[in-house]
Amino acid sequence: MDFRITEEQELMVQAIEEALTRENLESYFQDCDKNHEHPEKFWDILKELGCFSMFLPEEAGGDGEGAVTMFLVMEALGRCGAPVYLFWDHVKADALLENGTKEQIDKFMPLFFEGHPAYSQGFSEPTAGTDLSSDTILTTYTRKNGKVYINGHKHFISGAQGSDYCLTLAKNSENPEQLTLWFVPTNVPNCKKEPMETMGLHMENVNDIWFDNVEIEEKDMFSTEGNGLLATSKGFDYERLIDAFNAYGQALCAFEDACRYANQRIAFGKEIGKLQLIQNHIMEMAMRIYSMRDMLLHFAWNKDNDMLKREEASIAKQYCSEAANEVVDHAMQVMAGIGFCGSRVSRIYRDLRITRISGGTGEIQTVIASKQILRRYR
Amino acid sequence: MDFRITEEQELMVQAIEEALTRENLESYFQDCDKNHEHPEKFWDILKELGCFSMFLPEEAGGDGEGAVTMFLVMEALGRCGAPVYLFWDHVKADALLENGTKEQIDKFMPLFFEGHPAYSQGFSEPTAGTDLSSDTILTTYTRKNGKVYINGHKHFISGAQGSDYCLTLAKNSENPEQLTLWFVPTNVPNCKKEPMETMGLHMENVNDIWFDNVEIEEKDMFSTEGNGLLATSKGFDYERLIDAFNAYGQALCAFEDACRYANQRIAFGKEIGKLQLIQNHIMEMAMRIYSMRDMLLHFAWNKDNDMLKREEASIAKQYCSEAANEVVDHAMQVMAGIGFCGSRVSRIYRDLRITRISGGTGEIQTVIASKQILRRYR
Amino acid sequence: MDFRITEEQELMVQAIEEALTRENLESYFQDCDKNHEHPEKFWDILKELGCFSMFLPEEAGGDGEGAVTMFLVMEALGRCGAPVYLFWDHVKADALLENGTKEQIDKFMPLFFEGHPAYSQGFSEPTAGTDLSSDTILTTYTRKNGKVYINGHKHFISGAQGSDYCLTLAKNSENPEQLTLWFVPTNVPNCKKEPMETMGLHMENVNDIWFDNVEIEEKDMFSTEGNGLLATSKGFDYERLIDAFNAYGQALCAFEDACRYANQRIAFGKEIGKLQLIQNHIMEMAMRIYSMRDMLLHFAWNKDNDMLKREEASIAKQYCSEAANEVVDHAMQVMAGIGFCGSRVSRIYRDLRITRISGGTGEIQTVIASKQILRRYR
Amino acid sequence: MDFRITEEQELMVQAIEEALTRENLESYFQDCDKNHEHPEKFWDILKELGCFSMFLPEEAGGDGEGAVTMFLVMEALGRCGAPVYLFWDHVKADALLENGTKEQIDKFMPLFFEGHPAYSQGFSEPTAGTDLSSDTILTTYTRKNGKVYINGHKHFISGAQGSDYCLTLAKNSENPEQLTLWFVPTNVPNCKKEPMETMGLHMENVNDIWFDNVEIEEKDMFSTEGNGLLATSKGFDYERLIDAFNAYGQALCAFEDACRYANQRIAFGKEIGKLQLIQNHIMEMAMRIYSMRDMLLHFAWNKDNDMLKREEASIAKQYCSEAANEVVDHAMQVMAGIGFCGSRVSRIYRDLRITRISGGTGEIQTVIASKQILRRYR
Repeated sequence: MDFRITEEQELMVQAIEEALTRENLESYFQDCDKNHEHPEKFWDILKELGCFSMFLPEEAGGDGEGAVTMFLVMEALGRCGAPVYLFWDHVKADALLENGTKEQIDKFMPLFFEGHPAYSQGFSEPTAGTDLSSDTILTTYTRKNGKVYINGHKHFISGAQGSDYCLTLAKNSENPEQLTLWFVPTNVPNCKKEPMETMGLHMENVNDIWFDNVEIEEKDMFSTEGNGLLATSKGFDYERLIDAFNAYGQALCAFEDACRYANQRIAFGKEIGKLQLIQNHIMEMAMRIYSMRDMLLHFAWNKDNDMLKREEASIAKQYCSEAANEVVDHAMQVMAGIGFCGSRVSRIYRDLRITRISGGTGEIQTVIASKQILRRYR
Repeated sequence: MDFRITEEQELMVQAIEEALTRENLESYFQDCDKNHEHPEKFWDILKELGCFSMFLPEEAGGDGEGAVTMFLVMEALGRCGAPVYLFWDHVKADALLENGTKEQIDKFMPLFFEGHPAYSQGFSEPTAGTDLSSDTILTTYTRKNGKVYINGHKHFISGAQGSDYCLTLAKNSENPEQLTLWFVPTNVPNCKKEPMETMGLHMENVNDIWFDNVEIEEKDMFSTEGNGLLATSKGFDYERLIDAFNAYGQALCAFEDACRYANQRIAFGKEIGKLQLIQNHIMEMAMRIYSMRDMLLHFAWNKDNDMLKREEASIAKQYCSEAANEVVDHAMQVMAGIGFCGSRVSRIYRDLRITRISGGTGEIQTVIASKQILRRYR
Repeated sequence: MDFRITEEQELMVQAIEEALTRENLESYFQDCDKNHEHPEKFWDILKELGCFSMFLPEEAGGDGEGAVTMFLVMEALGRCGAPVYLFWDHVKADALLENGTKEQIDKFMPLFFEGHPAYSQGFSEPTAGTDLSSDTILTTYTRKNGKVYINGHKHFISGAQGSDYCLTLAKNSENPEQLTLWFVPTNVPNCKKEPMETMGLHMENVNDIWFDNVEIEEKDMFSTEGNGLLATSKGFDYERLIDAFNAYGQALCAFEDACRYANQRIAFGKEIGKLQLIQNHIMEMAMRIYSMRDMLLHFAWNKDNDMLKREEASIAKQYCSEAANEVVDHAMQVMAGIGFCGSRVSRIYRDLRITRISGGTGEIQTVIASKQILRRYR
Repeated sequence: MDFRITEEQELMVQAIEEALTRENLESYFQDCDKNHEHPEKFWDILKELGCFSMFLPEEAGGDGEGAVTMFLVMEALGRCGAPVYLFWDHVKADALLENGTKEQIDKFMPLFFEGHPAYSQGFSEPTAGTDLSSDTILTTYTRKNGKVYINGHKHFISGAQGSDYCLTLAKNSENPEQLTLWFVPTNVPNCKKEPMETMGLHMENVNDIWFDNVEIEEKDMFSTEGNGLLATSKGFDYERLIDAFNAYGQALCAFEDACRYANQRIAFGKEIGKLQLIQNHIMEMAMRIYSMRDMLLHFAWNKDNDMLKREEASIAKQYCSEAANEVVDHAMQVMAGIGFCGSRVSRIYRDLRITRISGGTGEIQTVIASKQILRRYR
């Protein structure tokens, strides 16, 4: 047993924290958040630090860093108040490499290296969220004259504004049981995309997309016909783990802000950190921060050693999304009026809530994990 | 024992719900919230319904309705998704009538009848929140040449934009132990007021106010010198109760929205309301909605019968502010993506969080109430 | 609206509290609990106070007191540390009066007036708990030669030791869909009853009962053939309410003990009640005690006015059984070592846990109530 | 980073689980618990497995196994339903070795190897629990004619029945500021010890001890005069970690029992493990089990590498004692009637509650840990 990280990992964490601290990005983040803008400055720093290529597969020219390193990077970003939730595109690369054609890989992989959004993922629809099946998916693809036509309405599609394509789940209009993925262009006349109102994630864009007979080709198919979600579902476990890293990272920032505030704020003649009711908040946060961290490191190590179990991914996702929200709630209570009014804790408060919903709701994690667990006790 | 409300109360609740439903204000509220505007249309309806005069004291020409009616009105407003948190000015009238000079009453009372903000309340400062004392209050008043000069910085001041005066807590620069309240004009050159960033309450304005030698007169003193917070603190218990009504009213709306959604949303071939994990959310909300309501009716009745105890007010405030936040959290989870993206539940989620902070944090309610309770067990 | 109780109710509460306090029964209760004995002294007091006849129907010669009075009595008993869970037999009287034959009523009703256990209720079986149906009930009745024979194994049967009969749910061996209730003698050679180990409720007995061809007559049928649980289910709503009264009453005792202790115990030079972390426990308890009480009074009043809804009964049961357990947990934490070692709070801690299980688990209450609630939002 | 345990550790865990499973001790444990007896059979197995010498210091002839191994052993014992809370004496050996005289070490160390209780620890008194100071400790030592005389009343003293000595904290009757530890014989005429009633821990004994002028010698002093708790407090951090191991181990047993039960119990035509409300309990337990385990392994590894921080020990103690109690509460709810009636889950339910109290209450852990944490954010 050994809990030490490598020297390279330590140096990288230091580099990230130094870069972000040196730039003092907080007021920039606040403005971006207020104006619903992508934080370009932050993106430039990530690129400079090598964060985009770091996790891309070695066979594609990336550094092939694994889950433990991913955790450490997201922790460092989160700690500095950065919108960790944006740092996600590289996660798609594994599925692309495994299922994409050479043409698709050659087209999109370089974008990942640039940190340029390659394609959004169009799974959800107004009628299809947790339950993605041929009953709920209404978007269709129809073959006609050697072409393929996409029709339908996608919903909650993250990052569609900045990218030119949407990897779209659709059913065969002639054989509705067949769910297939297609790379569909979105910057074309027959496609309309509109940002949705959201309570948080304001540096990201979340969209409605309407496809009105958008024409594509057979070669735009991803994986094989009827393979639908299977082509990406293999990565779901790791994605859940990364969702958990994200939740933890943001919570860490709120925790540390609250601790600093508790040391500075004076009431009744002493720092509020000396009041037991504030100490209680500190303790509640600390217990969650420590327990999230150790669990995530363990599961990340399991991932890197091909031992990550499905239930572990769901447990990580559910535990950390709940615990992270609880942490930021405690942080808000410690910081009180200051927390509610314009602090980054209030931004994190709004941003974190989605972690219990997106990437599989807490309810579906419960169903998935408990089934796996109970199987071991038959 | 009798839990029935009067026929007049029933009719009034009906009238409110009908008026608000007829106008279908939700998209208007959404716009006001987005644009940080006061909802004039809603205000007009309140006036038409007589809601402004309803709770003003009879000796001032109002209807003198009590706490039970107040609860019912706020419940009806809340249920319809209205920003109940705005409906608060009449609460100040009792203290005005009791402590104001004839001139002050004649000047401000008519504004209450109009629903026009008469004056904001300037207690908090950057260094003074829960602890309002001569140690933490830095704003001063200084007598010079028969005039009085106000200097200092007030913080978190609700509603200061729309009103011309701020009832300001300041300490005597020559005798710092003396905390005194003054009506101070805010639309004067030496006063600057600026709205603060807030996570919610976007139809309200919350402000920083800087007084730079603002000149007032002796007659602008409220109550007597050195009487400071005492002049308004008598009303604190009732205000806490009303804070609790507010929290409950908003939570009720989220609860009902979630119930309707659970009946309509289909997943896995049936309404999600048939899934036990959703039923669990429904139950958790219902238990809180029912228990808040019965507790608040009881305490409101106590108030109307001059029996409201200090600990009851603090318990109501703390219980309801926590329970209401839990309700809206469950509602959000039921509504999932829809909840997070542009629904009124997401507005309520942001708005409710302040109820555990303003009007006395949960921590101070705990200290106040437990002291009173323990006294009975000596 | 009126929250006052009648003068008679007040006097009765006083009488109960005086009687129980005068006798100082706590060490007696401790002994009974340790020795698994029925507390005869307490029973004598109840009889003297008229508590047995108080709630029996007027047409049967009782006082016909309703749910509000029931609440007040159970609150007074609970507050004094009495095993409220024993005070339950009168609840069966309504169903007896409605469904019993004249012979059955004449036989059993006088026992209720005496406080003598008339009959236990034999519904559960090793395979049948929350789900009582012809699939899970294995106990049968078989007609032969003009007699009826009962065979089977009943489980978790409260109070079977002191009574001569068990109202037994059995299915027709020739028509298994028919579930029927029978009064079956238990002090006969073919019936074996054995107390089960339990974590609490040690002044009650909870039993396994085995029927090995116990002979009864057609006239021992309760209600009509195939009417099974329906004959008693009408009373289920009220029973759930009473379960909630029971949970509340016991929690009240724990709360008050903890408050007294917090005032007396000195640590770090002052009463622990002055420490914020203890105040937090006091507040958490108080919020639950107040909210339980007001909810229960409201629902009790609804019951007395024939307005009790099914979801209200389930909400009361679930809310109070959870809240009561939380109260006693906080009380235990306040009293710490003293709480764990031989205090009545530790007895209540063990006794209360069953309230979330018996009389319908929390899970089934959730299913029942949420279904009713959602129906209103279609 | 490496989460693998050594082969020896794996073999040892296997050996323990096999030994305990082979003997099928559960009904024996039930009887011991019922009869308040020490489980000799279990003790013999521990000895045979080498568990007593395993953790004793190498310089004293033990195997000197560290915290990670300790965790694994306690996990294995706990999983099998054993009273892990008894397995604690070896923890005292470090302090003995460091502070004891050669005579003391020679006298007591062999007993540790035998698994024979060497001495109880007499710190608490009726007036002194969390606050152990010269204000609260009333037990005194008085020098007279070259001898030392102990007078006072110790409270909550675990394991005093089986041992001949109590390491007693007493203050100098002539200089009350001096708190000193002494080995005091308890099987002498002037000492009375009596088991206290407890809600759980029935295989252990928890005692009142009264010293009425018990005569000892100067050489019976432990560490130096006035060094009082300091002599043992160095080990407090590790002891808290072990308390957390204990809580976790017992919770694991409850978790696994509940999982097995959820697979077997049929209701409404299927295993209850297929009902979402039961799955929710499984998930809630699993999240705690996994997060406790990873946190404890990390802290144990820190301990073995001399890196365990004070706040980590307090966080482990507080997090695990709370989480373990929550686990057993969920397990009880899954097992419902079966859980409450005679199952080992009900024993664990009673036993675990003390973990939030003894070894430092949750409240004191909060104060200790938050102070350490806040120091890092100055």
